Amino acid sequence: MNIPRTSFPRVVIIGGGFAGISLIKSLKNCELQVVLIDKNNYHTFQPLLYQVATGGLEPDSIAFPLRKVIKDIPNFYFRLADVLKIDSLKCEVETTIGNLKYDYLVIATGSNTNFFGNKNIEKFSMSMKDVPQSLNLRSLILENFEDALLTSNFEERNSLMNFVIVGGGPTGVELAGALAEMKKAILPKDYPDLDIRQMQINIVQGGDRLLKTMSLKASEKSEDFLIDLGVNIWKNVHVLDYDGKIVKTSTDLTFNASTVIWAAGVNGAKVDGLESDCIVERADRFKVNEYNLVKGYENIFAIGDVACMELLIFPLGHPMMAQPAIQQGKHLATNIIAKITNKPMKPFKYKDKGSMATIGRNKAVVDLKNWKFQGVFAWFVWMFVHLFSLIGFRNKAVVFFNWVYNYIRFDRETRLIIRPYKHKNKESF
Amino acid sequence: MNIPRTSFPRVVIIGGGFAGISLIKSLKNCELQVVLIDKNNYHTFQPLLYQVATGGLEPDSIAFPLRKVIKDIPNFYFRLADVLKIDSLKCEVETTIGNLKYDYLVIATGSNTNFFGNKNIEKFSMSMKDVPQSLNLRSLILENFEDALLTSNFEERNSLMNFVIVGGGPTGVELAGALAEMKKAILPKDYPDLDIRQMQINIVQGGDRLLKTMSLKASEKSEDFLIDLGVNIWKNVHVLDYDGKIVKTSTDLTFNASTVIWAAGVNGAKVDGLESDCIVERADRFKVNEYNLVKGYENIFAIGDVACMELLIFPLGHPMMAQPAIQQGKHLATNIIAKITNKPMKPFKYKDKGSMATIGRNKAVVDLKNWKFQGVFAWFVWMFVHLFSLIGFRNKAVVFFNWVYNYIRFDRETRLIIRPYKHKNKESF
Repeated sequence: MNIPRTSFPRVVIIGGGFAGISLIKSLKNCELQVVLIDKNNYHTFQPLLYQVATGGLEPDSIAFPLRKVIKDIPNFYFRLADVLKIDSLKCEVETTIGNLKYDYLVIATGSNTNFFGNKNIEKFSMSMKDVPQSLNLRSLILENFEDALLTSNFEERNSLMNFVIVGGGPTGVELAGALAEMKKAILPKDYPDLDIRQMQINIVQGGDRLLKTMSLKASEKSEDFLIDLGVNIWKNVHVLDYDGKIVKTSTDLTFNASTVIWAAGVNGAKVDGLESDCIVERADRFKVNEYNLVKGYENIFAIGDVACMELLIFPLGHPMMAQPAIQQGKHLATNIIAKITNKPMKPFKYKDKGSMATIGRNKAVVDLKNWKFQGVFAWFVWMFVHLFSLIGFRNKAVVFFNWVYNYIRFDRETRLIIRPYKHKNKESF
Repeated sequence: MNIPRTSFPRVVIIGGGFAGISLIKSLKNCELQVVLIDKNNYHTFQPLLYQVATGGLEPDSIAFPLRKVIKDIPNFYFRLADVLKIDSLKCEVETTIGNLKYDYLVIATGSNTNFFGNKNIEKFSMSMKDVPQSLNLRSLILENFEDALLTSNFEERNSLMNFVIVGGGPTGVELAGALAEMKKAILPKDYPDLDIRQMQINIVQGGDRLLKTMSLKASEKSEDFLIDLGVNIWKNVHVLDYDGKIVKTSTDLTFNASTVIWAAGVNGAKVDGLESDCIVERADRFKVNEYNLVKGYENIFAIGDVACMELLIFPLGHPMMAQPAIQQGKHLATNIIAKITNKPMKPFKYKDKGSMATIGRNKAVVDLKNWKFQGVFAWFVWMFVHLFSLIGFRNKAVVFFNWVYNYIRFDRETRLIIRPYKHKNKESF
């Protein structure tokens, strides 16, 4: 990989997501050599991918070049590569561009969509975990409407205009809301020769309420908001299968739909090579102790979604979302320094900053520790928090401008089929 | 295609480029049914594609949804399709989504890259005529630098950092300037472990000066600007072949380069089905009379790049650029109305508004009829004209913001490999 060995200890970080970036920023003044490896040359701000998929934001404004994150930091390197395997005996990472020795390894690979082993669903449904997937979804939505124009067959048109979102977490709820706003404000103008009332947006939730990790009030209010927007909510229903045409569920409910978006769960994006007993089978996450050390290893850490710190208050590990990742990244920086300087490491303590979800214009739900609120003010808080969490001034400014523009004009202008999905992937349909 | 016949005459327009859009806007208050067919659902502002390719602008801000152009105009339709053939006897257009009858047909298909029949060059070099091609080029440039990091072979690294631009027209000159600015301000920071001096930017021009359609002064000054920026200019040299590694030329000059960008000429994007004697063989453009009627036809027009109006002052037709296209589109609207109402049509008269090219920050050349100027003021004029020619307020605002940001920060932030080109198209390398 052409990275020179220096007298400084080498820390190799796999993954430039929230956890990896947060760690790197906190390490920047230390006497270390840091190598960041990622399969993309950019960081993705995943919480806003749904706005890319629905034409509200351009992908470039929620992504940020990883090289720019480490710019001007001496001894920090970036390499674009897929990691194939960890060889813990040799202290080496095997990648598509060669092997790399590490003194300390940090696994921050995040998570993948969890299809629970259903190959059909994996093949025919859409995910929304990265930029290309979101652009594929954006293309598919628009291509479906173009196709709906061309058919005189009522059933076929119904299917093309029927959207089934599986999973009632923040991703599912936010996407359902955004689709509903497209239905209301944009599609009737773009497709005046279609009866947009035919468009159906369904959200299917296994449990008995949406946003089940949030407060009861947040669930209720988000359901009210979605119903107001015309979204059909199906609770206590599990999707069992999808063949590209018919969605089968655990009840006698079926959907005839060309588009299924799978937002029903994630798995840790584990890396091969470590002992199997350090992995939580069910979730593909690495078991870590309170210092984020992977079980059984002394110089391999895991942080963020891929780490599972089983504590009394979090028996299944921390929730797989941005906040634990950011906090673990920051905290690990101090522990790495402690370890190198032979000082005692400090256990990680998660500070719950609350959670939130937006459903549409002026409609959001926010749960803080001592204050839960919904509606317009929650929506402003949601926007403010997301805007300031974005990396880079340019991104913040462009996103802010787009939001103001979209709000005033009731528009989402980036509805371009730049990478045709359906008509290039015909075999899957 | 599910488009109802009404009592209004039907005008079918193939292509939503400068010509097609300009025609549509001018037809919007007429008693006509208008059907716009395009292979993309968006209009592309081609003059700024080079900024997408070099990470200065996001693709979404130089593209505009075609459905939004015709939004709220009754009786105007858009269909996303490739046109296969024109059947002039049946007055029908054959497309990938079915056939469509027309009363009047307007061919506004623009132009394609002209490789002058060289299959090798077509296979191995990059073009920059549309958004996906520009994104491919952006990816390739960045992927080359990532690869250059990994090799210890000096020759290989040279080749990866060697860029050959064939053609010294505005596209070639603007791209060369943008690459030179990346070399100066961005790449040394992004790739501190590479010796960026190894990066070579070559512009190869068949004639004896760059920007040969502009004034001598503009040519001289643009060459000065490029030399200042460190670009190698090769004049009176023709590129004969490229096998993905070695560029062969008409002289003993050769280049060992992984990237060749072909900006050496365009052909009309002619459509099949019309008589062969209405086509200018050399250029694949349709011969049109002064009313833009295709030779031998009474209800088929051609406008923009694909139309060749052979006049005394333009024996080879108008230059293939935005201004003639926009003016012909606008003018044709009045002629179509005249024809329908049995009034005499008026011959098209081209009003030369001048031409311009930008080389880099504070560096542009502008030729107006009575005033030719270069430098900072020219650069402001260039920006102003391009900004105001963009369609849509949102696009204007986002582009403006990016330019200000890039100017102040010496940055180009959208350098993301969102659609990996090289590593997904390995067979071509």
